[in-house]
Amino acid sequence: MATVRLLGYDEASPEARAVFDEIKAARGVDDVNNFWKALAHDPATLRRTWDSLAQVMAPGALDPLTKEMLYVAVSIANGCDYCIHSHTAAARAKGMSEAQYQELLAVVGMACQTNALVSAMDVPVDSAFLVK
Amino acid sequence: MATVRLLGYDEASPEARAVFDEIKAARGVDDVNNFWKALAHDPATLRRTWDSLAQVMAPGALDPLTKEMLYVAVSIANGCDYCIHSHTAAARAKGMSEAQYQELLAVVGMACQTNALVSAMDVPVDSAFLVK
Amino acid sequence: MATVRLLGYDEASPEARAVFDEIKAARGVDDVNNFWKALAHDPATLRRTWDSLAQVMAPGALDPLTKEMLYVAVSIANGCDYCIHSHTAAARAKGMSEAQYQELLAVVGMACQTNALVSAMDVPVDSAFLVK
Amino acid sequence: MATVRLLGYDEASPEARAVFDEIKAARGVDDVNNFWKALAHDPATLRRTWDSLAQVMAPGALDPLTKEMLYVAVSIANGCDYCIHSHTAAARAKGMSEAQYQELLAVVGMACQTNALVSAMDVPVDSAFLVK
Amino acid sequence: MATVRLLGYDEASPEARAVFDEIKAARGVDDVNNFWKALAHDPATLRRTWDSLAQVMAPGALDPLTKEMLYVAVSIANGCDYCIHSHTAAARAKGMSEAQYQELLAVVGMACQTNALVSAMDVPVDSAFLVK
Amino acid sequence: MATVRLLGYDEASPEARAVFDEIKAARGVDDVNNFWKALAHDPATLRRTWDSLAQVMAPGALDPLTKEMLYVAVSIANGCDYCIHSHTAAARAKGMSEAQYQELLAVVGMACQTNALVSAMDVPVDSAFLVK
Repeated sequence: MATVRLLGYDEASPEARAVFDEIKAARGVDDVNNFWKALAHDPATLRRTWDSLAQVMAPGALDPLTKEMLYVAVSIANGCDYCIHSHTAAARAKGMSEAQYQELLAVVGMACQTNALVSAMDVPVDSAFLVK
Repeated sequence: MATVRLLGYDEASPEARAVFDEIKAARGVDDVNNFWKALAHDPATLRRTWDSLAQVMAPGALDPLTKEMLYVAVSIANGCDYCIHSHTAAARAKGMSEAQYQELLAVVGMACQTNALVSAMDVPVDSAFLVK
Repeated sequence: MATVRLLGYDEASPEARAVFDEIKAARGVDDVNNFWKALAHDPATLRRTWDSLAQVMAPGALDPLTKEMLYVAVSIANGCDYCIHSHTAAARAKGMSEAQYQELLAVVGMACQTNALVSAMDVPVDSAFLVK
Repeated sequence: MATVRLLGYDEASPEARAVFDEIKAARGVDDVNNFWKALAHDPATLRRTWDSLAQVMAPGALDPLTKEMLYVAVSIANGCDYCIHSHTAAARAKGMSEAQYQELLAVVGMACQTNALVSAMDVPVDSAFLVK
Repeated sequence: MATVRLLGYDEASPEARAVFDEIKAARGVDDVNNFWKALAHDPATLRRTWDSLAQVMAPGALDPLTKEMLYVAVSIANGCDYCIHSHTAAARAKGMSEAQYQELLAVVGMACQTNALVSAMDVPVDSAFLVK
Repeated sequence: MATVRLLGYDEASPEARAVFDEIKAARGVDDVNNFWKALAHDPATLRRTWDSLAQVMAPGALDPLTKEMLYVAVSIANGCDYCIHSHTAAARAKGMSEAQYQELLAVVGMACQTNALVSAMDVPVDSAFLVK
C-alpha cells in the first residue's frame, strides 16, 4: 500500500542498518516499525529523523509520557492514522492509563471545536495574552 | 476585525451575563476574554461551550497543566492564532516553565514532520499497534 | 502585505480587465475585491477562477445562500481568514440571518470536534453507510 | 482497527446504555453506530457529545438537511473518512438529492481552491467585509 | 468504499464519455482512473475539472515534472491518500528519480516542521519579505 | 505579537550566537530573520533546525529553486503566513520568475481542489498506482 517498499534489515544499506541497530537497542525490540523500514530508502533522512526524535523525546523538563501524549494530540489534529496508532500504543507502553487517554481525547476534541469557533469569527487576540 | 461585534457585559443578554459571571468567578478575573464576548451572540452556544470546557479541563486523571499543554499543541497543529496565544498564556499561568514550553514546541514540530513523512509514504500500520 | 501587488483596473491587462468588467456587471459593484486584483497578474487563472466560480455558485439544485454557507463552513475548516470574511459578508448579503449564522457556527464547531474524536480513535466505517 | 474496542450494548456501563437508548429512540434504529460504541469507554464524553449534537442539529433557523450538508462540508475539509461517510449517508436519509450532493461537492472543491489561492498570496481583507 | 459508485464507460452519459475519451487520448491509456469514474456523476464538474487540470498542468514556465512534484507536496500536506498515490505514480512516470523523490519527502517533512514552529510562536513577518 | 520575545544577537546565548553566525555566513546577510530570533530561546532546537534545514535544502538530485518552490507549496497548504512570505521571497531570490510563481499558484490551487473532491468521495486507489 505504501508508495515505497518497506526495507527489511537484509535489504537495507549499512548506514540504514546502523540506525536500525540503534533503534532496536534503544527500545529493546527485535525489529523496527514500518515507519523506519519506509524511511530506509534515504539513509540521510533516516539518520536525521532518528537522531532528532531521540533528542526531542528524551526526558527533560517534560517527562516522556507527557511528550508522547503531545505527539498523539498533534497526530490527531493532523489526521495521520499511522502516527495516531503508533504514538497511542507508545503512550500506553509508557504508562498512559485508559482514564488519561479518555481525558486526552476529550481535550483534543474540545480544542478542535473552539479552534474552529475562534477562526470562524476571527476573534482579535486579547492584549493580556501578549508577551511583554 | 471579527465577523461579529464583541459584546460587553452591558450589551449581553441575561443568559449570556450569567455565563460571564460564572467565568469571572471560576477564573477570578474582572472581565472575560474576547472569545466569550464573541460567542455571546448565541447564549446557547456560549453556555454549552463554557459548560463543556469546564468539564473537560477540570482536574482528573490528567492535571490541568498537562491538559492546557495538549490544548496548545492542538491549537498549533490547527493554526489557530488566537487559541495559540490564549492557551499558551493559560499554560504559563498554570505553571508551565519556559523550558517546558520549549520542549513542547520541539515535540509539536517533530510530530508535524513525521506525520508528513508517514502520510507521504502511506506507511501501513504495524500489527503490533492494534488493539486486541 | 500580500505576496503580490494588488492590480487596479488601470494597471491590469486587457484580458484581466475583461474579467473585472464581468465581475462588476454580475455583482452590480463599482470595483472588484482584493482577491481578483491579486489574481490579475495571471489572466488565465483569473479567467478560469471566475468562470468556475460563476458556474459552481449559480442557482441550481441548491440555492445561492446554501452554497454560500457551505463556502463559509469550508473556509472556516481551512482557516482562511480572508475567505471567512468575504464569504460571511456574501452570505449576509444573500440573506443569511444572524440566527442562521449562529447555527452555522455551532454546526461547524461540533463537526470539528467529532471529526477529531473519530480520527483519534480511527473508528471503522459502519457497513450501513456504504453505497451499494 | 480502532485504538479502542467498540463496546456493544451488553458491555457498556449503565450510563453509556442510557445514552445508547436515547440515540436509538431519537433515530428509530435498533443499534447505534460505531462512533458511539467507541465513545462509550467514557460515559461523560459520550453524554456530552450526544447532548451537544442533539442541541446543535435540531431544527432551528436552519433546517436539518442544511445542517447535515454543512457537517459533510466540514468533514471533507478536515479529511475525516468516517465522518464523510456517516454524514453523507445522513444527508441522503434526510432527503439530499444526488443533484444537491453533486453541487455540494463542487462548492467544497471550489472553496478549497480559492482558500489556497488567497492564503498563498496573503490577500488583505477588503474593508467592505468588516463588521461595523 | 466510495460515497458514489464508480461509473464505467458504458454507464456514463455522452457528456462524460466525451471527457473520458479526451483523457484516454491525452494520456494514451485504455481506461481512466477511478477519480474520473467517480466524478462522472456530474458531467459539468467532470468537464470543468479536466479542462482546468489540462490547462494548469501543461508545460509552461514550469516543466511538467516540477508541477507534478508540487502536486505531490500539496497532496501530502493535505493528507489525501488517493492523490498522494496517483500523483507520486504520475511523477515517477514523468521521470522523477528515487533520489529526487527522497529529497522531495525530506523538504516536505522539513517544511511541515518549521511551519508548525512558526505558527506556534506567531513569528512576525520580516519587513524584508514584503513586496514593495 | 509572538508568544516569545525575539532575541537579538546581543541577548542570545553563545550557542545561539554560533548558529546565528553560521546562518549569516551561509546566506551572506548581516542579520538573521525573525524565525531564528524566536527559536534562539532553545539553542538545541535552533541548532537542530538549522543543521537539518541546511542538509535538506542543499543542492542534490533537486536544485535549490525546486526545493524552495516545494517549500512554498507546503506552506500554502498548511496556511502558514510567515513561511509563505519567507519562502516566496527566498524562491524569488533564487530566481523564480513571476511566470513560474503564477504557475506554482495555479498548481497548488488545483491540487487543493482535487484533493478535496477525492477525499469527499473516498475514491479507492487504483491498483495501477501501487508499488510492486
